Amino acid sequence: MFTPETYGQRREGLFDQLSRGLVLLLGNHDSPMNYAANIFPFRQDSTFLYYVGLDEPGLAAVLDLEARSTCVFGHDVTVEELIWTGPQPLLKDKAARVDVTDTAPIEDLDRVIRKAVAAGREIHVLPPYQAQNRLVLQALLGAEPDPSDPLIRAVVAQRSVKSPEEIEEIETALSMSYLTHTTAMQLARPGKVEREVVGYLEGMVKSQGLGLSFPTIFSVHGEILHNPTHDNTLQAQDMVVHDSGVETRLHYASDITRTIPVSGRFTAKQREVYEIVLNAQERAIEAIAPGVEFRSLHRLAATELVSGLKALGILKGDVEEAVAADVHTLFFQCGLGHMMGLDVHDMENLGEQYVGYTDTLKRNPAFGWCSLRLGKALAPGYVVTVEPGIYFIPELIDQWRSENKLTQFVNYEALEAYRHFGGIRFEDDILVTAQGYRLLGQPIPKSLADVEQICTG
Amino acid sequence: MFTPETYGQRREGLFDQLSRGLVLLLGNHDSPMNYAANIFPFRQDSTFLYYVGLDEPGLAAVLDLEARSTCVFGHDVTVEELIWTGPQPLLKDKAARVDVTDTAPIEDLDRVIRKAVAAGREIHVLPPYQAQNRLVLQALLGAEPDPSDPLIRAVVAQRSVKSPEEIEEIETALSMSYLTHTTAMQLARPGKVEREVVGYLEGMVKSQGLGLSFPTIFSVHGEILHNPTHDNTLQAQDMVVHDSGVETRLHYASDITRTIPVSGRFTAKQREVYEIVLNAQERAIEAIAPGVEFRSLHRLAATELVSGLKALGILKGDVEEAVAADVHTLFFQCGLGHMMGLDVHDMENLGEQYVGYTDTLKRNPAFGWCSLRLGKALAPGYVVTVEPGIYFIPELIDQWRSENKLTQFVNYEALEAYRHFGGIRFEDDILVTAQGYRLLGQPIPKSLADVEQICTG
Repeated sequence: MFTPETYGQRREGLFDQLSRGLVLLLGNHDSPMNYAANIFPFRQDSTFLYYVGLDEPGLAAVLDLEARSTCVFGHDVTVEELIWTGPQPLLKDKAARVDVTDTAPIEDLDRVIRKAVAAGREIHVLPPYQAQNRLVLQALLGAEPDPSDPLIRAVVAQRSVKSPEEIEEIETALSMSYLTHTTAMQLARPGKVEREVVGYLEGMVKSQGLGLSFPTIFSVHGEILHNPTHDNTLQAQDMVVHDSGVETRLHYASDITRTIPVSGRFTAKQREVYEIVLNAQERAIEAIAPGVEFRSLHRLAATELVSGLKALGILKGDVEEAVAADVHTLFFQCGLGHMMGLDVHDMENLGEQYVGYTDTLKRNPAFGWCSLRLGKALAPGYVVTVEPGIYFIPELIDQWRSENKLTQFVNYEALEAYRHFGGIRFEDDILVTAQGYRLLGQPIPKSLADVEQICTG
Repeated sequence: MFTPETYGQRREGLFDQLSRGLVLLLGNHDSPMNYAANIFPFRQDSTFLYYVGLDEPGLAAVLDLEARSTCVFGHDVTVEELIWTGPQPLLKDKAARVDVTDTAPIEDLDRVIRKAVAAGREIHVLPPYQAQNRLVLQALLGAEPDPSDPLIRAVVAQRSVKSPEEIEEIETALSMSYLTHTTAMQLARPGKVEREVVGYLEGMVKSQGLGLSFPTIFSVHGEILHNPTHDNTLQAQDMVVHDSGVETRLHYASDITRTIPVSGRFTAKQREVYEIVLNAQERAIEAIAPGVEFRSLHRLAATELVSGLKALGILKGDVEEAVAADVHTLFFQCGLGHMMGLDVHDMENLGEQYVGYTDTLKRNPAFGWCSLRLGKALAPGYVVTVEPGIYFIPELIDQWRSENKLTQFVNYEALEAYRHFGGIRFEDDILVTAQGYRLLGQPIPKSLADVEQICTG
């Protein structure tokens, strides 16, 4: 359970790693839709949530590294504002819930930062991703913000290792994902429009007071990896790739993908590719253990995919040599997975070179590999997704074929029969344990038999 | 029906009003939630939609006022991007759909603007409300953007008067609002949590490929005007204020409020206040006609409310004198309504002094009146909301009473019996016609008898 001390201890963990200057953590602001007062649902910054826990717009926190003290800057509502917002707890009472006793009006932040700058103290900030916070930092610091390398490293070190109460939150999100995914399997029938299913699922999530951890992917064009539209009418021969996630009230994420047969039954051809992707995912999950580099799991999955596609006659030649030549990137263009926590791509805003790689292990810039967000060795407490897929993208096939690319491995004639096959992906959320791994949440139907049973049951 | 010429003619209307320099219209950008790539649903800027019609992030348009020509700046997807996005039409093909033949890469915008600035040409821009566009304008112009008064006036002049096809869009939104409001009346029963109803309604809207024109208000605390939370469990004696709106695919809005009895039947006390508010709304609507100042309708509604509250014994003394003393602001703290169109508060980002007032008619800064977004004389083609309410806000009552405020008009003893009454509001969307007014959309149940029939039917 999250207590005030949860947050105090996290800040102590930061004080233990850094010694000089101030840490300035900015909360997020409301994001305007079409004018300033018409706003998207507020989403607090995840690092601010991690250390300060307060979930409302327009806050900031200053952590004094020498004094090991924290002050939260915010605003108390006036009677005039209360007409619009209803009664609100005082900032000092909200701060007490996260073990902070020192609060101040947000208007004081400028003075506090200027005084520290004048005294020659270092101000550690994180890279802004909200334009509004870039403007705030420009105004406070009088210059373009220069993110603090030591602060980023310290935050990544703490947030990468999930505590038992964080795991419990992620499993709460996964309980809802179990419902949305099995419901989607039941609703995705011929004649339905994609958005009808998506609207129903999002209503289910919202009804429970939960949120979405990212915009839902629900598409008969599974080969389009981040398809944001939901306007296709489902046909009996279609498969739907459904990739969605839930966010708990404390903003911990889930991220699950399943592939659904619209008719309720997969065709023989679909079954073959389904089993290849499923096998690749299961082999990669089974290999998870502390010390294992995630890039080696990506390679393992790629090898399983290539091996399966060779059995189908789409690929040929030596499997290891084919993977070494990156032939799998014709079908598997994205990464095997990513860290997950308060962000569905955890800490992506801090820079993936810090989160997914190390000073000595850099991201491979080659096509396909460059999309792998996580390459480094796993450690107990990491939560990662494992999400291989096979995607037949007509334009990419045409490009490779026109370049006669890797003809020693690709049977382009045989591949033509899969030109309009679409895509298949599976994704689960895995905790790295001291011994190996644990699948988080109640297992969500995934085998051919289990999925067809839900679809037709 | 919207055709390419719709947009061409709107731009001609702008060219007719302005003569020198360039108009730079910036489209909106994606808004990050918790990191740059995890984004809220995209909402295009409404003025950009009005003149350029293209509904995707990262576009700009330059209108040359001397040449009466338009160029759209954007981006065509590469094969690498297409893996993530799927095939996309070319920018020039999209531009042709809005009667624009001249397109250029977004990277060229900087050069075009710098060249015009160097040539001493004026660059007309609108006030930015997205922080990202403030940064874009700072970079393009080399200075803080200075919004163009003539451009704002020209845009407001055009957008204020709705064309028949715009009215048709608004009525499309209202058809969906009919469904959400009558469904809410059926779902809002004892034991339901507010968010369960809200989630269901939002799923309904999304299922039809429509959006919300603003965050839904659905609250047993109707006296909290912009209550964003939905965590209360409905009790039999509660009333729910349900204020929500739909946005069509072309982004035209509806905005409707109804008040629902959770038990299915209003109590005698609720019926009395309900009839007072309903009467005030109906009298204000009936008085709508070209040339009538909206502030006089606000005063008319206030007078009706005060008259009704006097009949209840909460107020006393001369009604006209009481309204002149602003006693109604104890119960009716907000404005009677606002313009509606592509924005639910139409053109709010352009500055309400332009949209709702005139050079000679300024907003009244007094409490209550200062919340009236629209004061000026109505004209045919305007679409406005009419939304009076009575809100019993305990903190505001306590403040007035402690100050002995307007004791000649307020019977504070009698008022105590209404301390926890909550709030009641009605809102409809009205077109100003040459002859008077027309209620837009199919009438949504509003009388006591009609609402109770839906609630219990």
